[in-house]
Amino acid sequence: MRIDIAYAGICHSDIHQAKEEWGSAIFPMVPGHEIAGVVSEVGSGVTTHEVGDRVGVGCMVDSCGECEYCRAGTEQFCLRGNVQTYNGVGFDGENTYGGYSQQVVVKDHFVCRIPEGIGLDVAAPLLCAGITTYSPLNRWNAGPGKKVAVVGLGGLGHVAVRIAVAMGAEVTVLSQSLKKQEDGLRLGAEDYYATSDESTFTTLRSSFDLILNTVSSEIPVDSYLAMLRVGGAMVNVGAPSAPLSYSAFSLIGGNKVLTGSMIGGLPETQEMLDFCAEHGIGAEVETISADQVNTAYERVQNSDVRYRFVIDTATIGQQ
Amino acid sequence: MRIDIAYAGICHSDIHQAKEEWGSAIFPMVPGHEIAGVVSEVGSGVTTHEVGDRVGVGCMVDSCGECEYCRAGTEQFCLRGNVQTYNGVGFDGENTYGGYSQQVVVKDHFVCRIPEGIGLDVAAPLLCAGITTYSPLNRWNAGPGKKVAVVGLGGLGHVAVRIAVAMGAEVTVLSQSLKKQEDGLRLGAEDYYATSDESTFTTLRSSFDLILNTVSSEIPVDSYLAMLRVGGAMVNVGAPSAPLSYSAFSLIGGNKVLTGSMIGGLPETQEMLDFCAEHGIGAEVETISADQVNTAYERVQNSDVRYRFVIDTATIGQQ
Repeated sequence: MRIDIAYAGICHSDIHQAKEEWGSAIFPMVPGHEIAGVVSEVGSGVTTHEVGDRVGVGCMVDSCGECEYCRAGTEQFCLRGNVQTYNGVGFDGENTYGGYSQQVVVKDHFVCRIPEGIGLDVAAPLLCAGITTYSPLNRWNAGPGKKVAVVGLGGLGHVAVRIAVAMGAEVTVLSQSLKKQEDGLRLGAEDYYATSDESTFTTLRSSFDLILNTVSSEIPVDSYLAMLRVGGAMVNVGAPSAPLSYSAFSLIGGNKVLTGSMIGGLPETQEMLDFCAEHGIGAEVETISADQVNTAYERVQNSDVRYRFVIDTATIGQQ
Repeated sequence: MRIDIAYAGICHSDIHQAKEEWGSAIFPMVPGHEIAGVVSEVGSGVTTHEVGDRVGVGCMVDSCGECEYCRAGTEQFCLRGNVQTYNGVGFDGENTYGGYSQQVVVKDHFVCRIPEGIGLDVAAPLLCAGITTYSPLNRWNAGPGKKVAVVGLGGLGHVAVRIAVAMGAEVTVLSQSLKKQEDGLRLGAEDYYATSDESTFTTLRSSFDLILNTVSSEIPVDSYLAMLRVGGAMVNVGAPSAPLSYSAFSLIGGNKVLTGSMIGGLPETQEMLDFCAEHGIGAEVETISADQVNTAYERVQNSDVRYRFVIDTATIGQQ
């Protein structure tokens, strides 16, 4: 189906790809995998969506549809390899182009409904930042009676706080400094600690059922594991490129779990959008015009954004 | 209650403790936390066991009994700290002495029934090696349709193979060499690979739902994680003292889990003994007399034991 794009979020990964920091990139490139818009045309075989529907597209636009992972609705693990929304090559051999655009044509299976009651601008970032954090919070049982720490209050972290709070968990933000403390508490966190302060790690020893690490910088893994309760889990969704080091005793001593999580499949992405709409959760966005993208990239790299830039695609080609 | 000890298994940790390799040790020391025997006397308050009962004692002999972990039957995580069977100090301030002895007095809660149909000699090692492997196999869902790899075919590994097979899993042994291949297959494994052969890691890529690592040597963590299927878990019960290194991408790429497991609580230890009796599982033991302990220690250190030494405690003081 054809989608008239309204907003496209700027994900940090767009910058890595555009700057060719993650291996070979395909140019010309149209980044953007946080896409929200309205259906403008559907093929004759499409039964799931109609013209005028509010929809979103995330990190994938195709997968084999037949392997065990696709059948299980976890298309991100497709054995043939899923087709990335941009900087990828489709099964037809054509390059894919993403959301920094006015239109995109996407296979119906990879298009989600954006429920009424959630603006397209604040919904766009949920298609990557939302599902990336919702999926592990869901899988590792964030909920009533559980203490959850979110490491990093950025594009992913600020959405993670809102989702975990809506799931009923008691949320603590662990951030480099206390600069964003007011925001963290406003988003629903009960506590906010600076990880630059060594005493944080002793104060919070054995405190959390779940730690969701959204930062890509290297962290002292053992110190974080020590903040988990017995049986607790630390999930990495941000990843430094350098190897991390840990002691096996940090895991054995309390049956602790170190794990990672990669976006989510289409059914769970829809579930996340429905959950966010139900709980009034959107990303906090700063809407920019197309000619501000380069400045926005610089600001993302300097962590100077609260908390996600979205491009108003109506501004493309307007200058 | 008082237990007349029949057999005490020799665990590799006994050697570490006796040689004071794990921090300060209490001497004189009576090692042994794989104890099997018969009840010879019970206190007036004991209702769970009677004189003549076949019983076992594992790694713990006391805990607070009141904290959340004790109440949950996971006494190994007691917040007051559990009292080790030997080389520990009881809550009464007295040192504890273990199973290389003819008798031991243990609080009833820390004594398990050894079901009929399982010899005391082959049961003794289950009190440590059995529960250490049963607990993670149980927690991480070894069972029908699951492919489980057991790393290392030693005291822990050979019991792990039998338990995982009895749980219905398809088991592969990953051993340094193929020296013990025949044993591995006899114990019920379907496959046996040498980890010294680099091609093992490519052949077995994305193969396992669960990897149980029983070895204490350093391993290339990322190479092992690559043998897990999506969502698979690697559990460490053996631990090298040096830090291990991993890439966060190895976890994120397939929602993989790296975790550890420490023995098991009393209810699960009883469950394990019942399970082993039901499935005819005992350790493979070489019974020795007390005067052979030093030689046995040397052979354990040289990996020259198939698969567990047990001391016939009737031989103590007989030379």
